[in-house]
Amino acid sequence: MNALTEAAFSPARQREVVDALRAVLPAGSVLFDAEDTRPYECDGLAAFRQLPMVVALPASEDQVVAALKVCRDLKVPIVPRGAGTGLSGGAMPIAEGVVLSTAKLSRILKMDPYSRTAIVQPGVRNLAISEAANVHKLYYAPDPSSQIACTIGGNVAENSGGVHCLKYGLTVHNVLKIRMVTIEGEVVELGGEALDAPGLDLLAAFIGSEGMLGVVTEVTVRLIPKPQQARVIMASFDDVVKGGNAVANIIAAGIIPAGLEMMDKTSSRMVEPFVHAGYDTDAEAILLCESDGLPDEVDEEIERMTEVFRASGATAIAVSTNEAERLKFWSGRKNAFPAAGRISPDYYCMDGTIPRKNLARVLLAIAEMEKKYGLRCANVFHAGDGNLHPLILFDANTPGEFHRAEQFGAEILEFCVEMGGTITGEHGVGMEKINSMCVQFSRAELDAFLALKSAFDPLSLLNPDKAIPTLRRCAEYGRMHVRAGKLPFADLPRF
Amino acid sequence: MNALTEAAFSPARQREVVDALRAVLPAGSVLFDAEDTRPYECDGLAAFRQLPMVVALPASEDQVVAALKVCRDLKVPIVPRGAGTGLSGGAMPIAEGVVLSTAKLSRILKMDPYSRTAIVQPGVRNLAISEAANVHKLYYAPDPSSQIACTIGGNVAENSGGVHCLKYGLTVHNVLKIRMVTIEGEVVELGGEALDAPGLDLLAAFIGSEGMLGVVTEVTVRLIPKPQQARVIMASFDDVVKGGNAVANIIAAGIIPAGLEMMDKTSSRMVEPFVHAGYDTDAEAILLCESDGLPDEVDEEIERMTEVFRASGATAIAVSTNEAERLKFWSGRKNAFPAAGRISPDYYCMDGTIPRKNLARVLLAIAEMEKKYGLRCANVFHAGDGNLHPLILFDANTPGEFHRAEQFGAEILEFCVEMGGTITGEHGVGMEKINSMCVQFSRAELDAFLALKSAFDPLSLLNPDKAIPTLRRCAEYGRMHVRAGKLPFADLPRF
Repeated sequence: MNALTEAAFSPARQREVVDALRAVLPAGSVLFDAEDTRPYECDGLAAFRQLPMVVALPASEDQVVAALKVCRDLKVPIVPRGAGTGLSGGAMPIAEGVVLSTAKLSRILKMDPYSRTAIVQPGVRNLAISEAANVHKLYYAPDPSSQIACTIGGNVAENSGGVHCLKYGLTVHNVLKIRMVTIEGEVVELGGEALDAPGLDLLAAFIGSEGMLGVVTEVTVRLIPKPQQARVIMASFDDVVKGGNAVANIIAAGIIPAGLEMMDKTSSRMVEPFVHAGYDTDAEAILLCESDGLPDEVDEEIERMTEVFRASGATAIAVSTNEAERLKFWSGRKNAFPAAGRISPDYYCMDGTIPRKNLARVLLAIAEMEKKYGLRCANVFHAGDGNLHPLILFDANTPGEFHRAEQFGAEILEFCVEMGGTITGEHGVGMEKINSMCVQFSRAELDAFLALKSAFDPLSLLNPDKAIPTLRRCAEYGRMHVRAGKLPFADLPRF
Repeated sequence: MNALTEAAFSPARQREVVDALRAVLPAGSVLFDAEDTRPYECDGLAAFRQLPMVVALPASEDQVVAALKVCRDLKVPIVPRGAGTGLSGGAMPIAEGVVLSTAKLSRILKMDPYSRTAIVQPGVRNLAISEAANVHKLYYAPDPSSQIACTIGGNVAENSGGVHCLKYGLTVHNVLKIRMVTIEGEVVELGGEALDAPGLDLLAAFIGSEGMLGVVTEVTVRLIPKPQQARVIMASFDDVVKGGNAVANIIAAGIIPAGLEMMDKTSSRMVEPFVHAGYDTDAEAILLCESDGLPDEVDEEIERMTEVFRASGATAIAVSTNEAERLKFWSGRKNAFPAAGRISPDYYCMDGTIPRKNLARVLLAIAEMEKKYGLRCANVFHAGDGNLHPLILFDANTPGEFHRAEQFGAEILEFCVEMGGTITGEHGVGMEKINSMCVQFSRAELDAFLALKSAFDPLSLLNPDKAIPTLRRCAEYGRMHVRAGKLPFADLPRF
C-alpha cells in the first residue's frame, strides 16, 4: 500500500497556488482542505492513494485555459481527472500538484442526428450520450463496464473499450474530433468530421495519452443506429483449449460478433450463486457470443456461430430467444467484478492482450502462477479481441498478499508480452503499469513517445510519471529485476 | 510550370554523397547521371519537376538504415518515394537532395489467413496484396484508382483511400502495424495487432505523414473476406441539388454503401463517348451506389437504397443484375481521369472535402468559378464521404492557363474550408497544397504538427518543405493573398 495521505507540500506553496487559481476561477472552484480533497485521493485503483495539494474545478474552456496558464507559470504539475473510475491509477494525484477535474464541464453541446454526431464536454457521462441520442434511435458504441459513471473525457484519456469493441471499436474509433487546451493555454482542434484530415493525425495520439498532452474541452463523437435486434449464444466447453480454439475459429470463419466473451470455471462459479444467470458451472470455459443487426441477419449469423461452436466441441449451447433472456445471459459477465468482491476481500483486475490463438496457453500459464503465488485467479476475457481481465483474489489485511498479487499481475503481463501481446488492452498504463512499459517497448520506441510528450509539454507538468517511463526508470527497473533473479525478465529487457 | 531540370548542386557535393552511399549500398543502387535520375524528377503531379542530385535504391531494412545514417551525417535532405503515382507532389525531389526509392523492397513477407493479416515491404504494389490474398478469399480493402501501380509504402505516406473507403476506411483504418527507420537510423515499430496498444498511438500520426517522420520498411495490413456479392445502382437526377440531397438521405437512412459516387453532366458527357457505360448524359448528376455482402443482405440493401433515391426525386434508376453489368456501370467512373485527358490537353485533379449536406452548394459555386477563370471543370465526387475531385481542364501550351487552373483549384479548396471541409480528402498535401494548410489550420495547430515533426527529425532532413508549412511561409502567403486583393482569403487567414 502506498497510502501517503499526509500533506507533502509546504503551506506557503499551497497558498500561492490556491491564490493564483482563485484569481481566475469562480468561488468554490478551488479546493484545498483535506476534507474537500479527500475524494480525489485515488481513482478506481484504490490501493494507491495520494492526497493532492489543490483541486481545481473549471466550468468552461476559458477557465481551463486560465487554470493551465496559472499552473504553467507556477510550474505546478497537473493531473487531469474525469470521473475517477480508471483502473490503472492514471488519475492518482501528485502530492505537490493540482488535480484538474472536468466534472463541471458536463454539457451536451450539440446532438446532430443528420450527421450522426454529438459534441459534448468532457465531463458528460458515457451513458448520458446514448441516453440523449436514444430519441433519434442512435447510440454511442464504446461501453466500458463503468459507463454509468465514467465520463467521455476519461474515455478519451484512456482510449476505453467495452464488451462491444470487437465489432464497434474503442474510443479512438468513435471520436471524430476533439478540442483541447495545451499547457501553453492554446486551444487546438485535432481531427475532423471528414474521413481524412490534412496535417498529422494527432487525434489518435491524443486519445489514450492519459492526460499527458493536454486537457480536452470538447469531444465530437460518432453515433450509430441502435441495432434492431441482438441475440446471444452461451456455449460450454469441457476444456479451456477447446474454448480458446472456438474463439479463433469464429474469427477465422469471417464472423465479427458484437461481443465474444470467455469466462473460466472459477469465474462462472464465483458469479452464478449471486446472479443466477443460468451458467453451466461444470464447464471449464463458457463463451458468450452476440450477434446484432437486422433480424434476418442476426438469425443467420447465430446459425453460423452455432455451427462453429458445435464443430469446435461445445458440450452445451443455448441461444437467447428474447431480450430478457439475452440480458440474463449477460448479467453474469457484467457482474463478474462485483461478484469477485463478494467472495474475496480484495481483487486486483489485470488487463493485458494476447493473440487470440494463445488464449488457452495463457489460461494454463495462469493456473501455474496461481500455485506459485498461492492466490486464486478468476479469468474473464474479452476473448474476441484477445483482451484478458484476470481477477487476482487476495486479502489486503494478510501481510504480503497485496505484494504477491502485484507480482502475480506483473508476471501475467510479461507473459502476455512474451506471447506477442501487450500490457494493456483498455485500462491504460497509468502509474500501475509504467514499469511494464520498459518490457513492452524498445528504447527507440520510448524515445519517440517521450519526444512527442516533450513537444507538447516540455516541462513535463501534465500528469508526469504516468504512462510513459523515463529511461532512468527503466534502467532501475531492469536492475531491480535482475537482482530478484527473475530469469524471464533478465532475457527480456531491451534496455 | 516549375521545370527546374538543370542541376542545382555542386559536382563536389554530389560526389561526396554518391561515394558515401556507394560505401553502404550494393552496386547499381546509387543513381546520379541525369539520364538515370530523370524518371524520378516528378510524381503524378507532373506539372512540377525537379531533377534530384542522387537516387538511392536500398533493398533491405539494413540498407535503409545505412542510407539514412549517411544522409543524416552529411545533412543531405531525403525524399522517400514509392511508385511515384501521388497527385500532390509529395515525392517531388529536392535539387540538392537524395530520392530514397523503396522499389526494391518489394517482397510479401507473410500472408496469414488465420489472423487475416499480411506483412509486406513498402514497395509491394497495392493490388499485389489482394492478388496474393485471393487464394484465401481475402483482400486488402483500400483501392486508390492507381492501385495497379501504387505501392503500400506510398499509401501509408499519403493515407490513401479509394471508392470503397466510405465503408472500409482509408489506409489508416486498414494498417495494424508498421516498422520504420528514423533519421537517426533507429528501427521503431508503431501499432500492433491488438485492438489497442499501450503508449502513444503514433501509428495514425505516421500514416499520412508524407515521408516526414521516417522511412517505412514493413507494413502489417488487415485483410478482409471478399464479399460474396456486390451490386450497384445507377440513379439519374435532373438537378444537382436533388442529387446532393439523395446522398445525404442515403446516409441519414442508416445505410453505409460500399461506394457512393457522384458525377456531374460534364463528367458523364466526357466519359460516355469513350467508355459506353450506358450513362444518362441528359442527367445533371448521376449517382453510383454499391452494396456488398451476403446475397440476401445485398438484395435488401439495394431495395432500401432504391426507395431512398426514388423519394429523393431520381428520374431514372438502373440496378446491375450481374457482375459484367456492375463492372460496366463502374467503368465510366473508373475511366473519368483518362477520359479527361482525351478531351483536354491537360487537367488538374483537385481533392478537397466538404460536409455531405453542402455537395450541391459546392457544385453551384464551382460553376460560377468556371466563368470567372474561363476554364471548364468536370466534377467527380466520392460523394458518400464528401470527398471532391473536380478536374479542371486546361491547356498548358496556352500562356497563363496553368496559372489560372492553379488559382481556380486554390479557390475551390478555400471554399471547401469555408463550408467546414478540408483541403485534402485522400491525395495528401505534398508541395501542391502546402499554402492551403495556412488557411486550414490555426497557428497553435501548425505548432503542434511542427513540434511532432521536429521531435522525429530535428534537422528537417526528411522531405522538408512538404505537407506542413513553416510559420514564415504562412505569413508570406497571407501577405501575397492580401496584395492580390482576394477578399475571401483576407477574411480567412488565421495568421
